[in-house]
Amino acid sequence: MELSIIKIGGNIIDDEAKLSAFLDAFAAVPDKKILVHGGGKLATKVAEGLGIRQQLVDGRRITDAETLRVVTMVYAGTINKNIVAQLQARGCSAVGLTGADGNAILSHRRVHASIDYGFVGDVDQVNTPFLTSLLQQDNTLVFAPITHDGKGQLLNTNADTIAQELARALSTSFEVNLVYSFEKSGVLLDAEDDRSVIGLLRPSEYEDLKARKVIFAGMIPKLDNAFAALRSGVSRVIIGRAEELPLLLAGKAGTTIQHE
Amino acid sequence: MELSIIKIGGNIIDDEAKLSAFLDAFAAVPDKKILVHGGGKLATKVAEGLGIRQQLVDGRRITDAETLRVVTMVYAGTINKNIVAQLQARGCSAVGLTGADGNAILSHRRVHASIDYGFVGDVDQVNTPFLTSLLQQDNTLVFAPITHDGKGQLLNTNADTIAQELARALSTSFEVNLVYSFEKSGVLLDAEDDRSVIGLLRPSEYEDLKARKVIFAGMIPKLDNAFAALRSGVSRVIIGRAEELPLLLAGKAGTTIQHE
Repeated sequence: MELSIIKIGGNIIDDEAKLSAFLDAFAAVPDKKILVHGGGKLATKVAEGLGIRQQLVDGRRITDAETLRVVTMVYAGTINKNIVAQLQARGCSAVGLTGADGNAILSHRRVHASIDYGFVGDVDQVNTPFLTSLLQQDNTLVFAPITHDGKGQLLNTNADTIAQELARALSTSFEVNLVYSFEKSGVLLDAEDDRSVIGLLRPSEYEDLKARKVIFAGMIPKLDNAFAALRSGVSRVIIGRAEELPLLLAGKAGTTIQHE
Repeated sequence: MELSIIKIGGNIIDDEAKLSAFLDAFAAVPDKKILVHGGGKLATKVAEGLGIRQQLVDGRRITDAETLRVVTMVYAGTINKNIVAQLQARGCSAVGLTGADGNAILSHRRVHASIDYGFVGDVDQVNTPFLTSLLQQDNTLVFAPITHDGKGQLLNTNADTIAQELARALSTSFEVNLVYSFEKSGVLLDAEDDRSVIGLLRPSEYEDLKARKVIFAGMIPKLDNAFAALRSGVSRVIIGRAEELPLLLAGKAGTTIQHE
């Protein structure tokens, strides 16, 4: 059975009309589905309102205890529960989760030689039986980008990583389509031309484009991750605009990354 | 099979040491269990921090849109997810829910002849199959006092009411013990003497104590609700200090309200 795992970012979450249109399309996706949402501007706004200053070290955001409190509020509270209520209104029985709920995603606090990222989690394990059981009972899952360490500590965790780890773990039970919402129409041959989307990208073509330096540097980590997901069992990775979700899943928009 | 539904209030949630001790005891409760938590002082603190003024009409709190946003953050985000993570650390596989998740508790915005309470929900329906399925798969449920109207609107909902509605609905599948955490040791014969706890209270005794005006007025709505819960199928209602949870469930502390 197919399972679509769709990650959306701040550009959708921050725009009420865009989010509403996206949720219409998401609710209409057939079979099993999981939505993974990122944060958006609300967390910054709430942190500013509460006088919590953003910690930056070498240009990277640090999740200190106060920031963790804010992202837990905003991601797992406001954003997650509003999306769940809006999906319910569309006849889609959604259940909102963090990695702590049902021990869904266990992680550990990031260890780094020189930077202390604070309360940031790197994923160790996905509770596949728990999630499979919820999905098989026709629940749609909505994940906030928060995990836990099994010792009582919540951890801020990258939403792209959560989507990828869920896709990898659930590919043992489902035929998984992993969709990354992107601010461009897909992977472009010409970074300046949104019409130059590569519709289908397979490993050999990717190697060729990389060798010819046609794919611009910024896309390489994203695509390396996408191909790693394929190798770990995911059926297809699709990159494109969340606004075009039905077309993305039908292979009529965005870039579909799949095996030869 | 027994199901314990335990409601805790701000006096436990606001005190880190008390909450930790309570969660130790709660994690150790055998069989199926549900925790319903109220709000505590954090919501007021966050609202003040964000410059949101508390609306009061005739001395009653009004949940305007801004206040709803804050209680959703604090109840469903901070408090709920921290309790879930702490229960996971105690080997208890908790799943945090609002009434929107899995359409668990459907409500409607309160209709009142003279007061507009704002975004406050009165419960219409509990999704018993969804909750029973989660419980039968050995999940412990942790409810934040937020429900939804099925049309995309979240609603602030009294935690005592949520506990009672869950108890009523689930009593068709389980033998339900409903425990209300209380700031006194139980129902008292002498409101000034914490040692005058009535250990066991049955309908005929209650009518007698009411007629003799032994039970002070403030307790009557609470006890009327408890006896209504009994009549709706709940096995026992227990009122006492959450700090004494194991003794309460063993009938060795607090007031147990049950049939003749």
